[in-house]
Amino acid sequence: MDQSLYYLDHAAATPVDERVLVAMQPYFARQFFNPSSPYAPAIAVRREYEAAKSRLATTIGAKGDELIITAGATESINLAFASVAGHVVVSSIEHHAVLKAAEQHNFSLVEPNQKGTITAESVQAAITPETELVSIQLANNEIGTIQPIREIAAVVEAEKNRRKELGDTRPIYFHCDGSQGFGQIDVNVARLGIDMLTLNSGKMYGPKQVALLWCKPEVRVKPQIVGGGQERGLRSGTENVAGVIGFAKAAELAFKHKKSEGERLMKLRDFMQKRLGDEFGETMIVSGNQKKRLPGSLHVSFPGLDGERLIFSLETKGVLLATGSACAANQGTRSHVLRAIGLTNEEADGSLRITLGHLNDQASIAEATEIIIRDIQREMERINRA
Amino acid sequence: MDQSLYYLDHAAATPVDERVLVAMQPYFARQFFNPSSPYAPAIAVRREYEAAKSRLATTIGAKGDELIITAGATESINLAFASVAGHVVVSSIEHHAVLKAAEQHNFSLVEPNQKGTITAESVQAAITPETELVSIQLANNEIGTIQPIREIAAVVEAEKNRRKELGDTRPIYFHCDGSQGFGQIDVNVARLGIDMLTLNSGKMYGPKQVALLWCKPEVRVKPQIVGGGQERGLRSGTENVAGVIGFAKAAELAFKHKKSEGERLMKLRDFMQKRLGDEFGETMIVSGNQKKRLPGSLHVSFPGLDGERLIFSLETKGVLLATGSACAANQGTRSHVLRAIGLTNEEADGSLRITLGHLNDQASIAEATEIIIRDIQREMERINRA
Repeated sequence: MDQSLYYLDHAAATPVDERVLVAMQPYFARQFFNPSSPYAPAIAVRREYEAAKSRLATTIGAKGDELIITAGATESINLAFASVAGHVVVSSIEHHAVLKAAEQHNFSLVEPNQKGTITAESVQAAITPETELVSIQLANNEIGTIQPIREIAAVVEAEKNRRKELGDTRPIYFHCDGSQGFGQIDVNVARLGIDMLTLNSGKMYGPKQVALLWCKPEVRVKPQIVGGGQERGLRSGTENVAGVIGFAKAAELAFKHKKSEGERLMKLRDFMQKRLGDEFGETMIVSGNQKKRLPGSLHVSFPGLDGERLIFSLETKGVLLATGSACAANQGTRSHVLRAIGLTNEEADGSLRITLGHLNDQASIAEATEIIIRDIQREMERINRA
Repeated sequence: MDQSLYYLDHAAATPVDERVLVAMQPYFARQFFNPSSPYAPAIAVRREYEAAKSRLATTIGAKGDELIITAGATESINLAFASVAGHVVVSSIEHHAVLKAAEQHNFSLVEPNQKGTITAESVQAAITPETELVSIQLANNEIGTIQPIREIAAVVEAEKNRRKELGDTRPIYFHCDGSQGFGQIDVNVARLGIDMLTLNSGKMYGPKQVALLWCKPEVRVKPQIVGGGQERGLRSGTENVAGVIGFAKAAELAFKHKKSEGERLMKLRDFMQKRLGDEFGETMIVSGNQKKRLPGSLHVSFPGLDGERLIFSLETKGVLLATGSACAANQGTRSHVLRAIGLTNEEADGSLRITLGHLNDQASIAEATEIIIRDIQREMERINRA
């Protein structure tokens, strides 16, 4: 059996796109030169590296030299937070990378509403005169809710203006963790109105351990990793040429097909949601903001069921999905996201996180949906008998 | 022309070995799962990741769970330094990553002798009761001098014992930057007697942007990048499965062929050095410790010549080499290593750093040597005419 036949966990990991791998190949062995070396073939590699950064930047409406290339979204996020010393504001449903980085500061948590939306008003209420960073995710990695980034940006902008009028030079930046959603929805830094953006190659069919932190030119970034002075001195270490060439290719493909892919995934997701809803009706809870949700995201709960048991039983039929986010910090603990949106323990424990992507098509989703339905029915019968 | 026909800059970058790339391939697209996901194919990836770490650790005589995988030697070094707060001791001929990391602490520089050797006595003299970290490179990346790590380790060990007797609980660790030399000389953490080791995949025919920091279990590492809790909470971020599989393969190959490759490179290097010596005699300075030098390293200076001019003229004939280390911090400045070993500006400016490796064989080295000789002669004539 092809073990990714029914892969429904694209938020955890995406395979490297064939075209991305093709673009990267020459830079492993033939064009392996250190971009800082002085001879022509190395200078050519430097040029291709910078060109790839420019193409990458174009997909978010930015310039190449505004990007700092890092080894992952977690590093980008840590770098964003390391750039400020004062109070920070984050939502309680951010990824662990944001929550842990926030804990190294004086911080305030903003709670979402029951749909998982972080309102601009709630962010505004949390901002103090000492706040130097607000960090809100583009879309939630568990329930798919897309956050009102523009509206939150307006609140941060108002605080900037207030300080300017007072002659207060303390900066306040708005960082957005865009790890989830690129390639499904619009991610343009100017339209979003943000100061910093994290984007993760490994979640968009690019190579793993490559990410970027985009910063507006006025953001004063404090390097966390010092040394040879690469990335304008903001992140030292020999450049990941193959990785960035691959990241750029992945971002270009995602950008180009964003609209059609978003529509395609939404159709598949809506099909699945409807079929599950027809079958289980009121016994199924759909979480997240159904009007503002990533097209490929579907989070469902069946109170009383054991989500982990379901995962293992589905896995034997080739259906791969998770109860929540895949990271070491989450193992054996209940989701902080589901708790924050008010799910009971019973509801949270009966959860399935379904995230669709390139590996899915109509036929396989129809099959996977029926497998899921049968397994849930079997579990429900088992519980009712007990 | 094959642009790496006469590649003599293996200290700057190495191509990914064909066998390494083959080992990595399945993990880009087919085995792309997040190792923290709960289903069997992801658990299999986790097992293979851990197994690769174990194989990697074996090549330095360590255990897999003593390794922290990072995105490069620079990050490993920064992580080693972030783990201590007190005074640090480094040599003045370390890589910029070590020097810049040291600058974030109260630090002392140990000067090398004229051969570039850091003596144990000079390290001992620099250690104070407040010293918490000593960091000395395994071998110098410009002149190839291999440092007496065992002897320096004994000095650190003596200081540990002194503190223990006094009931002083302040730790002192010995970190060794092993970025250069693995695959040419023995690198065994127990035999070296060190507490921490940095090793760089990108300098040993493995993928770029993968490295490790090995730490003795008693070293208390302070994470620089927090989040999902990967690498035992010491370095968060989704694991670089393909990268680590590739790194392990590269390390195994380097370990296996260390003796024969070391001997092969030494023969090539000695051939080249003799041929150049025969031609230029006393007008050529060979730097580094000729009794304790990396087998593939040859650093020569021709006082009065312009090394950079030579690099460019050699490049047009397919001979690729550098005047010194390749990193952004070095561009347009004189080498701190050559200054430290007492070379005059004129001597430093007439330098060529030759570092041999997999891409070289007897025939190509013989050809490259003749090309270099002709170019140097032409330059000398041009200067004499002027």
